[in-house]
Amino acid sequence: MILERFKVPEKDQVLVDDAALRRTVTQIFEKLGVSPDDAAEAGEVLTMTDLRGVETHGVSNMLRAYVRDYKAGKLDPRPGWRMVRESPGTAVIDAERRLGIIIGPKAMRLAVEKARRVGVGVVTVFNSGHFGAIGHFAMQAAEQNMVGVCFTGAGLSVVPTFASKPLLGTNPIALAAPARHEAPMLFDAATSAIAGNKIRLAMRVGSPLLPGWVTDKDGTPIMEEKPIFDRDDVYQAPLGGTREQGSHKGYGFALMAEVLSTVLSGALPTMLVPGSGSKNHFAAYNIEAFTDLEQFKDTMDTMLRTLRTAKPAAGQERVLYPGLSEAEEIQHRRAHGIPLHKEVIQWFAECTSEFGLAPLVTMR
Amino acid sequence: MILERFKVPEKDQVLVDDAALRRTVTQIFEKLGVSPDDAAEAGEVLTMTDLRGVETHGVSNMLRAYVRDYKAGKLDPRPGWRMVRESPGTAVIDAERRLGIIIGPKAMRLAVEKARRVGVGVVTVFNSGHFGAIGHFAMQAAEQNMVGVCFTGAGLSVVPTFASKPLLGTNPIALAAPARHEAPMLFDAATSAIAGNKIRLAMRVGSPLLPGWVTDKDGTPIMEEKPIFDRDDVYQAPLGGTREQGSHKGYGFALMAEVLSTVLSGALPTMLVPGSGSKNHFAAYNIEAFTDLEQFKDTMDTMLRTLRTAKPAAGQERVLYPGLSEAEEIQHRRAHGIPLHKEVIQWFAECTSEFGLAPLVTMR
Repeated sequence: MILERFKVPEKDQVLVDDAALRRTVTQIFEKLGVSPDDAAEAGEVLTMTDLRGVETHGVSNMLRAYVRDYKAGKLDPRPGWRMVRESPGTAVIDAERRLGIIIGPKAMRLAVEKARRVGVGVVTVFNSGHFGAIGHFAMQAAEQNMVGVCFTGAGLSVVPTFASKPLLGTNPIALAAPARHEAPMLFDAATSAIAGNKIRLAMRVGSPLLPGWVTDKDGTPIMEEKPIFDRDDVYQAPLGGTREQGSHKGYGFALMAEVLSTVLSGALPTMLVPGSGSKNHFAAYNIEAFTDLEQFKDTMDTMLRTLRTAKPAAGQERVLYPGLSEAEEIQHRRAHGIPLHKEVIQWFAECTSEFGLAPLVTMR
Repeated sequence: MILERFKVPEKDQVLVDDAALRRTVTQIFEKLGVSPDDAAEAGEVLTMTDLRGVETHGVSNMLRAYVRDYKAGKLDPRPGWRMVRESPGTAVIDAERRLGIIIGPKAMRLAVEKARRVGVGVVTVFNSGHFGAIGHFAMQAAEQNMVGVCFTGAGLSVVPTFASKPLLGTNPIALAAPARHEAPMLFDAATSAIAGNKIRLAMRVGSPLLPGWVTDKDGTPIMEEKPIFDRDDVYQAPLGGTREQGSHKGYGFALMAEVLSTVLSGALPTMLVPGSGSKNHFAAYNIEAFTDLEQFKDTMDTMLRTLRTAKPAAGQERVLYPGLSEAEEIQHRRAHGIPLHKEVIQWFAECTSEFGLAPLVTMR
């Protein structure tokens, strides 16, 4: 569910078919030295993210950063990883500077395997590149009749409550759970008041930031609505914005994600090693180890339908649940195409030309 | 970390030694038909909660509710529980209307046992009475060199974003992790803007509620500061308060807790069965299955110290981390006593007299 202010203005939109996008993205990864299997995995993660409407983490913001980091040698394109420690229900992976969106699907598959055997599986990963929208990996588990949960510790942009500088990342938390007829639940949220990429997106579309979203360079929350012209003028506030509005909870959730991903993988948090990679936690809960699978899906259906059909508050159109608008967006974008900003299309043109690839096919 | 406005005013305080409180609370539970072992467990949970300064969930608000529910036959005082399903890493428990603060310690011990064998253990519990402050159970795991995580689905007081009536409870989430010299991390937060018990507490001490904490009876967030005289005049808002400030994230966290506790224990959420009991999720992560235990504690120490000693924003006294003020409060209250409201002391007097018990010993 993305606020109107973050959408690409219609006049700047170019529509792209998801199959065309997946193909071009996969080809770009191959040109960067990534194996065909891994390139296909990366193409799938990024395209699904844009299909879901999570454009903050799709090709627009992320692909160019990935390309830049491969070229700079910050990311290792080779396949594989290093298993550091393993038990029947757990594993710890050193990603050895591989890209998160390539490691993520494998890590969640390993968690699912473990959950199939002992009921629950947890895999932590450190020393990797960016993981994209982690809800994607949680959904992988949901597609295997499990509940999927992910935590990320990454970045250094969020100011703890009462502090004067950033010591935590936007550290997102995600959960996906299957239903029967209803769209699956898919919750994926930064523990900051606003996702980091949304600031870049707001700058691109010229939208102002709202009170409580960011702090000044002293750490004090900015409580007036204003546009941002320089990303470096502000830090990010935890979910809640101010202590009175619950920022200590957003801060606590960020720290929870940091412990479960970073510290539980034996790594150091970014506050101690600035510039260190992303750390992640992938958990799969095998529903059948807990209860009857069909009953679980029926309960999810009834619960999600109750939310979806609840009477809205005055002036509101309808009640959503996490994952509903994403599922609707997938249907709509599969039929009508993915809207990309013309500036992003321009980047694709330069990138495919540089690599000697066929241009990205657009729909208009 | 409790806001000043929620503290018991000094003129209304009566100080009680924690050993005296534990003794009297345990005796009251025995009089209600609870076994000596279980009564001691309940006395320990409630007393530790008050020692930590979490008075919303200590004896003041909760004990009288527990006594009332035992008397009304809503709670079953007998020992035991019913295991519904079990795997190497998981278990599901039907609490058969036993009190949560008695079931909780046993459920977390089972999760810890499982984590010792397969790396991670998850126990879900349904059909129980109130669980108190769930951070207590997370701390049990931390004391066993594990990371403890708890989720609760209970109650019907929080209005989902854009909805007009409550469909979720305040559904708290907690995490505890051990450190070496620093106080352990202990995060325990309702996913609502404000804990349900804090509204009662604010009413008792006559404090106003702040903007974004509650909604009117139509579900619209109340954005002005005002005192509440009737709990029934308002509903609770999710963490974030309004959609613009991130209430969809608070709502998502509440639903995450509901799935991991309620649906994953095969139970129905309170929105479908109003008045049904508390559902809980206890997870223990065996640190040694993931990484070196000593390294984990060192990293926690460095991280928590970095937060604690960070330069505060202008006008702020210091930076806290979740669990720091609780640890300080334990030290202070062990030395100087637990401050209870004189009205609570009056309730104890009536209760002990009714049961033929010695009165609660107070310090002044």
